Amino acid sequence: MTIHKGLINVDMGEGYGNFICGPDKELLPMIDHANVACGFHAGDPLIMAETVALCKEHNVKIGAHPGLPDVQGFGRREMKLSPEEHTANIIYQVGALQGFLTREGVEMHHVKPHGILYGMMVRDIEVARAVWAGVPKGMRVFGLPGSHMETAAKEAGLEFWAEYFGDVKYRADGTLIVDRKKKPWKIEDVKAHVKQQLYDSKVTAVTGEIVEMPVKDYPITICCHSDSPGCVEIVTATREVVDEYNKAKGF
Amino acid sequence: MTIHKGLINVDMGEGYGNFICGPDKELLPMIDHANVACGFHAGDPLIMAETVALCKEHNVKIGAHPGLPDVQGFGRREMKLSPEEHTANIIYQVGALQGFLTREGVEMHHVKPHGILYGMMVRDIEVARAVWAGVPKGMRVFGLPGSHMETAAKEAGLEFWAEYFGDVKYRADGTLIVDRKKKPWKIEDVKAHVKQQLYDSKVTAVTGEIVEMPVKDYPITICCHSDSPGCVEIVTATREVVDEYNKAKGF
Amino acid sequence: MTIHKGLINVDMGEGYGNFICGPDKELLPMIDHANVACGFHAGDPLIMAETVALCKEHNVKIGAHPGLPDVQGFGRREMKLSPEEHTANIIYQVGALQGFLTREGVEMHHVKPHGILYGMMVRDIEVARAVWAGVPKGMRVFGLPGSHMETAAKEAGLEFWAEYFGDVKYRADGTLIVDRKKKPWKIEDVKAHVKQQLYDSKVTAVTGEIVEMPVKDYPITICCHSDSPGCVEIVTATREVVDEYNKAKGF
Amino acid sequence: MTIHKGLINVDMGEGYGNFICGPDKELLPMIDHANVACGFHAGDPLIMAETVALCKEHNVKIGAHPGLPDVQGFGRREMKLSPEEHTANIIYQVGALQGFLTREGVEMHHVKPHGILYGMMVRDIEVARAVWAGVPKGMRVFGLPGSHMETAAKEAGLEFWAEYFGDVKYRADGTLIVDRKKKPWKIEDVKAHVKQQLYDSKVTAVTGEIVEMPVKDYPITICCHSDSPGCVEIVTATREVVDEYNKAKGF
Repeated sequence: MTIHKGLINVDMGEGYGNFICGPDKELLPMIDHANVACGFHAGDPLIMAETVALCKEHNVKIGAHPGLPDVQGFGRREMKLSPEEHTANIIYQVGALQGFLTREGVEMHHVKPHGILYGMMVRDIEVARAVWAGVPKGMRVFGLPGSHMETAAKEAGLEFWAEYFGDVKYRADGTLIVDRKKKPWKIEDVKAHVKQQLYDSKVTAVTGEIVEMPVKDYPITICCHSDSPGCVEIVTATREVVDEYNKAKGF
Repeated sequence: MTIHKGLINVDMGEGYGNFICGPDKELLPMIDHANVACGFHAGDPLIMAETVALCKEHNVKIGAHPGLPDVQGFGRREMKLSPEEHTANIIYQVGALQGFLTREGVEMHHVKPHGILYGMMVRDIEVARAVWAGVPKGMRVFGLPGSHMETAAKEAGLEFWAEYFGDVKYRADGTLIVDRKKKPWKIEDVKAHVKQQLYDSKVTAVTGEIVEMPVKDYPITICCHSDSPGCVEIVTATREVVDEYNKAKGF
Repeated sequence: MTIHKGLINVDMGEGYGNFICGPDKELLPMIDHANVACGFHAGDPLIMAETVALCKEHNVKIGAHPGLPDVQGFGRREMKLSPEEHTANIIYQVGALQGFLTREGVEMHHVKPHGILYGMMVRDIEVARAVWAGVPKGMRVFGLPGSHMETAAKEAGLEFWAEYFGDVKYRADGTLIVDRKKKPWKIEDVKAHVKQQLYDSKVTAVTGEIVEMPVKDYPITICCHSDSPGCVEIVTATREVVDEYNKAKGF
Repeated sequence: MTIHKGLINVDMGEGYGNFICGPDKELLPMIDHANVACGFHAGDPLIMAETVALCKEHNVKIGAHPGLPDVQGFGRREMKLSPEEHTANIIYQVGALQGFLTREGVEMHHVKPHGILYGMMVRDIEVARAVWAGVPKGMRVFGLPGSHMETAAKEAGLEFWAEYFGDVKYRADGTLIVDRKKKPWKIEDVKAHVKQQLYDSKVTAVTGEIVEMPVKDYPITICCHSDSPGCVEIVTATREVVDEYNKAKGF
């Protein structure tokens, strides 16, 4: 089995108009991949332009972060869309971000769905297929390993990367608990959570069970959220664990 | 002076969700260029997908039709945005449409701003510059000849096409009267209006003055609106006048 | 058992900005109750002002028609909201309509939830309770008899009226089939559908079963939709059946 | 001339969905009047419900704070609406807030327009008339004394209160400079600004001129903004100046 370097991705540009979301500028020096909101759950064209410029300046790779069309719910309220709507929504959002990237001369690195849309893909193969159908062939996509996201990504001819989570808890069936508003974490819990996933490919569910999270040969990226309370501390801690892991593995 | 073939452009895909706007399918066989709404004043991702497919089927060239971010006002309520916002809004909308075109293997033919945004560009060079700044270099753009749209397009390295109007009236200063809701036209008035513009490069203002509308060497395209009452008859009449003109000019 | 007069309710004011929905002016002379859209799934303040004035002119009783916050989906895409959100959404929409009614000196006659929100209330007691919790005590509410809408309305101290449907089909379990876009009906099918409900308190499900629809002692109102294809014919036919019924019952 | 007690009003509930705006809970103990956002420029039904409950708990009087329909621009981008649209927008927003107040058994204390809509009313009598036309007769309204807001309020039979500003600068013509994003203030400047208005009915414009701001016999309320950087310090300082003034005047 190939051992991959540990990497960190964070959602960026999730403000809206005058509303600010996370401390993007403080986080950018610590991360590898930015998932840039595309205007449906957060982000607007001006914020996207600024976020793409900021990421470029910090040499952080840029991915599209499409969500459900629901700013008020921050893309965290489940909505039943038709498969055609899901696909069209993704084409639209990925295309919009591509417009900014083309102008900055930067390649799109990946696509990672946001919030409850991610959760719906994990649980529902039809949603997973409809969303991935909107992503250009051959693109890297981030998703939960072992879930429908993985299966549907391979069917669609996409390059799947396995995602672990620094600040999201899991159920015993391996699915994620997507809260409408993020709750605080103790830093030692973040570290233990990330270590367990990175070193053991396992996670302890909120109900105590140990869940296997096999990543096979996929590259790994750890997600932290810029809207979590204490996110600077969370990302700092995750960076430490990941750097140690990378050192230990010879990267 | 080069004589160009007369061509017809119509806004397409200007529904929203369940709301239908014009009779796109009836108009497509009669037109040369479709300006596809990009979701800000009308259109949504699903409608864009369907409209692009329809245009391709009818072999109609596709342009982006970006507008102000105001579905409720159908992009016909003036909004004061910063130049950076205008530019970012255009990059976003043009990029989103490009996503659908790339997937269909169709080239973007042109960009034409919608509604009051068009009117603002005619009157205000700063708005014209900000909007064109969001269009990829070298792209064809449609605009009012002799206005700031022309000046700013040339400054920005864009290919300018002169636009005449089949169903919009002019003021004595050559600017357009953008109504919130389109009013009916008599078909003989449409024909006279189009003929005067095509053959004489002139237009009679609503107050009676004859206004010069020099198109220089620019290609010409006549705009009709799919939300005008009686639009099928208007486009049919315009097509007749344009076909006669083209025949007379040897095209 | 009390026999109630048959009455007809239709959704009104379901346009948005420049987008027109149904032929409200043609339908108003034929109906008893208008359910006025409140801006969340359709309607905007200007349309609400005009619709309230029109209803008053035609002496049609006015109810609030609150929906999910989703103009693009016309309130027909299921969204998972918290109970507090549902309640607050109803208080907001009912209050907004009340503003127009107070100014016109007209009483609010009833509240009837729109689209998939209605469907969610039929199936889920928690949603039914959360929605009715936003309605002022003692208000008339329209809903599906025998469903959670009835139970929750009584718990909440509201006056429940039983609703039958002229242009919506039922499943064998008595729930409604809410389509994103309405499909055409044959007029004789509308008549048979309405008659069966009015005279027999039964309905034939799409799968052929006869479903009991007991209305107990509740007043009855038959719903038709202004966005159904052929809605003028549907309402005309329903009016005929209802008028005959009322005559037969001595009203 | 009657001397009125100095009072402080602050905009409240200007978050949107997951987005937080000001530190409402910290400010409430220091203020007299809350202007509660009504969902058009900020605020959503859930936030309105929570804000009304909070104000009631702190015994702060509640007013409606209607804005332009533009969450992305936070109601600070000028939009050209028809007078009928302005009026309907106000009826809608004031009615929606009234829904929450009725349920809490609290009276609506006043109406104060938000952001650039306020600025448009100051400069344009037609906008001032259209907005006030949407407010229930006899209601208290806050506005800039000496401007069209005052004239139109009296025409409309409303009770006008004169508003001064703790954290907004003035032009030499007495109009306000409405920034899209608020800039920081030095606390000593806030104090001097408030004192000059309260004690002298004058203000120093950004260009240095001393502008007369006669309040005649109107009650006075000083506005501070919850989205100004350092707003807790600004409100604390304003409270100090106002308390001193009230003591000096014998209140």
